[in-house]
Amino acid sequence: MSNLLENLNEMLLMGPGPSTVSPTIYEALHRPTLGHLDPRFIEIMDTIKIQLQTILNTKNDLTVPMSGTGSAGMETCFVNLIESGDNVLVLINGVFGIRMQDVATRLGANVDSLEFDWGTPVIPEAVKLHLAKKKYDLVAVVHAETSTGVANPIASIGELVKENGALFLVDAVTSVGGMPVEMDNWGIDALYSGTQKCLSCPPGLSPVSFSPKAVEKLTNRKSKVPNWYLDLSLIANYWSGSTRVYHHTAPINMLYGLYQALFDVIEEGVENVHSRHKKYHEYLVDGLEKLGLEMLVNKPYRLPMLNAVKIPEGINDGDVRATLLNDYNIEIGGGLGVFAGKVWRIGLMGHSAYEKNIDKLLGAIKNQL
Amino acid sequence: MSNLLENLNEMLLMGPGPSTVSPTIYEALHRPTLGHLDPRFIEIMDTIKIQLQTILNTKNDLTVPMSGTGSAGMETCFVNLIESGDNVLVLINGVFGIRMQDVATRLGANVDSLEFDWGTPVIPEAVKLHLAKKKYDLVAVVHAETSTGVANPIASIGELVKENGALFLVDAVTSVGGMPVEMDNWGIDALYSGTQKCLSCPPGLSPVSFSPKAVEKLTNRKSKVPNWYLDLSLIANYWSGSTRVYHHTAPINMLYGLYQALFDVIEEGVENVHSRHKKYHEYLVDGLEKLGLEMLVNKPYRLPMLNAVKIPEGINDGDVRATLLNDYNIEIGGGLGVFAGKVWRIGLMGHSAYEKNIDKLLGAIKNQL
Repeated sequence: MSNLLENLNEMLLMGPGPSTVSPTIYEALHRPTLGHLDPRFIEIMDTIKIQLQTILNTKNDLTVPMSGTGSAGMETCFVNLIESGDNVLVLINGVFGIRMQDVATRLGANVDSLEFDWGTPVIPEAVKLHLAKKKYDLVAVVHAETSTGVANPIASIGELVKENGALFLVDAVTSVGGMPVEMDNWGIDALYSGTQKCLSCPPGLSPVSFSPKAVEKLTNRKSKVPNWYLDLSLIANYWSGSTRVYHHTAPINMLYGLYQALFDVIEEGVENVHSRHKKYHEYLVDGLEKLGLEMLVNKPYRLPMLNAVKIPEGINDGDVRATLLNDYNIEIGGGLGVFAGKVWRIGLMGHSAYEKNIDKLLGAIKNQL
Repeated sequence: MSNLLENLNEMLLMGPGPSTVSPTIYEALHRPTLGHLDPRFIEIMDTIKIQLQTILNTKNDLTVPMSGTGSAGMETCFVNLIESGDNVLVLINGVFGIRMQDVATRLGANVDSLEFDWGTPVIPEAVKLHLAKKKYDLVAVVHAETSTGVANPIASIGELVKENGALFLVDAVTSVGGMPVEMDNWGIDALYSGTQKCLSCPPGLSPVSFSPKAVEKLTNRKSKVPNWYLDLSLIANYWSGSTRVYHHTAPINMLYGLYQALFDVIEEGVENVHSRHKKYHEYLVDGLEKLGLEMLVNKPYRLPMLNAVKIPEGINDGDVRATLLNDYNIEIGGGLGVFAGKVWRIGLMGHSAYEKNIDKLLGAIKNQL
């Protein structure tokens, strides 16, 4: 029987995630597995909490990586913070906003949405007008909308949500590790992220953080969290305190990977990492424009780590991506939803965000045009 | 800044899981990360499905590893199969039966339980009497109760559940890969397992399988599954069919580990692997009894991979386990619930289940008595 893993070669992952994993993180993934209650593992957990607090700019004690991918973080935030009948507002300008709406609706919330054109940001003035009319329990928005490459103005929205009195929930899956995320300063009450974007880990964990106000909501729930696996009131007892209470067996080796990823970001310097993403984003855009390609998103709203570029007339989306994958070992992403077949999504995330990778990609695209 | 991963040494993990990871699986974990829609990754997914069907002895098409640990598999089975108000019976003889009861109750089911003494098996005659009195939508039981080391008689219970007309849900987290699991022959409709027990992978994935009858219940639900992340009707579209629909980004490298674990089991021969667990279980019990120790569970009901042994009078549980961990690099488990401080739980799972490991453990215990 042949082993399918034997012939895998290293790819240049420049799509919407996963991103290229760095050698230090591959190394971490296969360090010896410890028991989930081993004191040396507890020390690693404690350090991961501090590392996450550093990168998220928060003092929140309830800051933990959930044992699932980014979408599990989304589920975690909603299922812990929402009770049936709560009023929720979701600000939508892409696929991941729609997903939030779906998750909240399934949990029995009364969900309103405020929609903005895909490829453009959420407009705070529109949010302000809407919030003046109704009090919400929770307002949710995506920071870096991976489906379009748009950055939403979280700080401005945060001020408005605070006035309304609602909890403020932010999807930071794609932004964390690639651009500033100021959880406390921006008034974010609950945030989830992922490991396979700018942290350059393989997918499998979702860092989540709750503010004291969010913890208060969790503590005062009328009903138990209708999801045992993601119940943060139980998980918190495994991730803090002097006696660790077993909840579920943590994904040990994935947590090694996350530890190493955060270690690397902090060692390079969080601001340096953000600058690097910005610098190579500009380098990429410049190169794409020199090839005659046009960006989807207007300049002030572009994400550094996810670049949506319009596919020129007469070019076959699938053919180009297949050629990049098979002949050049480069993966880029196709469009989602209304942009399927119309844009490519080029990721510059973590270990992928270097000049040599961009040069390789631009050369490959040039040959296809 | 010192790196906590640098000084980790290989441990002999002989507790209730995680078990010692084999070198082949460590190797698999750090193979190059592919995109989650890369055709070569899809081929690995397809193979994992077939490998799981082989080891579970099932033809079920809906056989997939969920992106979370074993407890996520438990949550998956209940949240997909239960609707509010459904009648559920949980057969309980340990911690993991109680957990099932908690999960089902949180989801709004009417949950009855039938309890048996911890350390003894579920008694089919009692189940038969109970099922004669009431029709259930679902009956749930743990195959290998990790908290006590007891094997429950799944085939006999399966026949009774079939007569009742209920769906039959089985927790096979600890049994899969260490003893026969005959999903189709035993009339199991839904099953979940884990990777960190007899498959010797690090924790992080939970194989789940649904029978056609379970799929029918899922398809005919009145309400959407109140958990987007674990909704099998969506996940099935990523794991099968000619066009794979993105749901969440799969934990690529963990799936490499699972692929390799199943590859290794199938290469050794599924029956040979089971025989090895049984043989070394007997070898361990013999050695423990020669040291004057007494097993918790009566012989006919003992699990091969989880051995609960009574802590002799005058011996301090915590001291012995700390000495094993720190001086011998061996982890064994303490008791849970009513057995806390009263038993040790010695795992013989997957790559841990070899003579040299048992000899090392027995020698270390001998020095502590």
